[in-house]
Amino acid sequence: MSVIYDRVALIGLGLIASSIAHAVKWKGLAREVVGHARSAETRATALEIGLCSEVFETAAEAVRGADLVILCVPVGAMDAIAAEIAPHLKPGATVTDVGSVKQAVIDAVGPHLPEGVHFIPGHPLAGTEHSGPRAGFATLFVNRWWLLTPVAQSEPDAVARLRSFVEAMGANVEEMDAPHHDLVLAVTSHTPHLIAYTMVGVADHLRRVSQSEVIKFSASGFRDFTRIAASDPVMWRDVFLTNKEATLDILGRFTEELFMLQRAIRMGDGDMLHDYFTRTRAIRRGIIEAGQDTDAPDFGRAPAPKPGA
Amino acid sequence: MSVIYDRVALIGLGLIASSIAHAVKWKGLAREVVGHARSAETRATALEIGLCSEVFETAAEAVRGADLVILCVPVGAMDAIAAEIAPHLKPGATVTDVGSVKQAVIDAVGPHLPEGVHFIPGHPLAGTEHSGPRAGFATLFVNRWWLLTPVAQSEPDAVARLRSFVEAMGANVEEMDAPHHDLVLAVTSHTPHLIAYTMVGVADHLRRVSQSEVIKFSASGFRDFTRIAASDPVMWRDVFLTNKEATLDILGRFTEELFMLQRAIRMGDGDMLHDYFTRTRAIRRGIIEAGQDTDAPDFGRAPAPKPGA
Repeated sequence: MSVIYDRVALIGLGLIASSIAHAVKWKGLAREVVGHARSAETRATALEIGLCSEVFETAAEAVRGADLVILCVPVGAMDAIAAEIAPHLKPGATVTDVGSVKQAVIDAVGPHLPEGVHFIPGHPLAGTEHSGPRAGFATLFVNRWWLLTPVAQSEPDAVARLRSFVEAMGANVEEMDAPHHDLVLAVTSHTPHLIAYTMVGVADHLRRVSQSEVIKFSASGFRDFTRIAASDPVMWRDVFLTNKEATLDILGRFTEELFMLQRAIRMGDGDMLHDYFTRTRAIRRGIIEAGQDTDAPDFGRAPAPKPGA
Repeated sequence: MSVIYDRVALIGLGLIASSIAHAVKWKGLAREVVGHARSAETRATALEIGLCSEVFETAAEAVRGADLVILCVPVGAMDAIAAEIAPHLKPGATVTDVGSVKQAVIDAVGPHLPEGVHFIPGHPLAGTEHSGPRAGFATLFVNRWWLLTPVAQSEPDAVARLRSFVEAMGANVEEMDAPHHDLVLAVTSHTPHLIAYTMVGVADHLRRVSQSEVIKFSASGFRDFTRIAASDPVMWRDVFLTNKEATLDILGRFTEELFMLQRAIRMGDGDMLHDYFTRTRAIRRGIIEAGQDTDAPDFGRAPAPKPGA
């Protein structure tokens, strides 16, 4: 691989940013990776483990001279960060982000950016339940989707360059508009997360079943909920606050559908339940065929290839 | 290991029964394993892959001379099977089952069994999304819970013997009464499954997001739902029909809680969301510490040890 951007600036140094830093180094995609984090502890860790060659106290310093700026902060922090960095961006630089919601990021960041800077919002569909600068690893994006939602002003050349950068980290790229992105994610990610959080909360409140019982016997289904309910609380708060309409839309459909199944249970309508459960199996098969999970009997996921392997 | 039961009869030859057959052979826990399945195709498969030394067309034939009879059929089929086998059971034999609901099994099976037969209901908390006689593997129960819900008449010696059999397959055993079992499972398994089925159904119905988009972008949370929503439809229909009260109780709490979070989203109450999401993280940590999942960054689960390893 060859250098795609001379200098990359990572604003925020959590799971996604640290994985980008590792992947860029693994593939040699930049001559230099610099960074900024609000917390002094995170900045010290980033230097200690060699994520960046330089780590700055302010985002304004970090973006100076950068050809690619990647905003890796919670969606709710994008507005303030964009206002801070705007006067310091190099003309011709590309600014992207990794936020889970796209219209809200466009509304927050777009108005601050000067002419001559390419703004191309993005969203890697990759993550783990861990957060922070030590959580990253180089292969996080391998065979995962990275969605780009270019705005009207995004120049095709700048989009193609960012696309090649992301693909070089192993990701598959798809472009779509921001409102569609936000609806797709409300279905595939945001609502499932809210439901998982809720189910874990219910178990936590129940007096007649102890928390240690819930934990001990979690392998029978509950475990899969706790995994997604363990993600970063700040990130998820911002997702729901900024993708409100689409999430509430999907939640409304979900409760309608749940009430229908609940009624079938109450009325003892076995045929209805059986038909419903049969249909949902087909979607699962599609996911395995699409290579987004394995069908190993232990539900294991093959670990991503190690760098250098 | 040494032989614990001379002759074991498996009634039903799906995922759980075939895993028991493999585990019994692996550990040498019986001199002979015989079986029965309703479908001629399943019976042929069981003989072909050597699950059992003999496979019978009727459950009545299969239980003759068996020291341990394990009912591995959906909960809704237990009543008819118990009526059929009762006259053919060997005096002193132990009858157990692997149903996901326990009070309904006790009500269905108990009245049919003659005096002198030990009835000890059971439930292994282990499974995969696959079903059928080819789905089983010897290590399915290793480090998983196997709950026993002895009834008033269950003799301590018979319970201890069954317990040692189950532990020899690698499982951890806990005893509890049937109503408590059904409530614990409603929280940790039955309600999570219903919710997962519902979410997958919602995604399936949505016109503005194509099924191929849902499948492609499933890694962002939805995937974990599809995994548990792919389980055997007949088994799950019977679970909800026979654990109706506890499931409806937990579902009621779930929708209350969900509406509260939905309202917080609508009102933009970020503090409430953040607090809620922070609390659920603690439960997740408990599960990892209890050894019921790993915290590997790729969410991988270590495969169970291979027989002989």
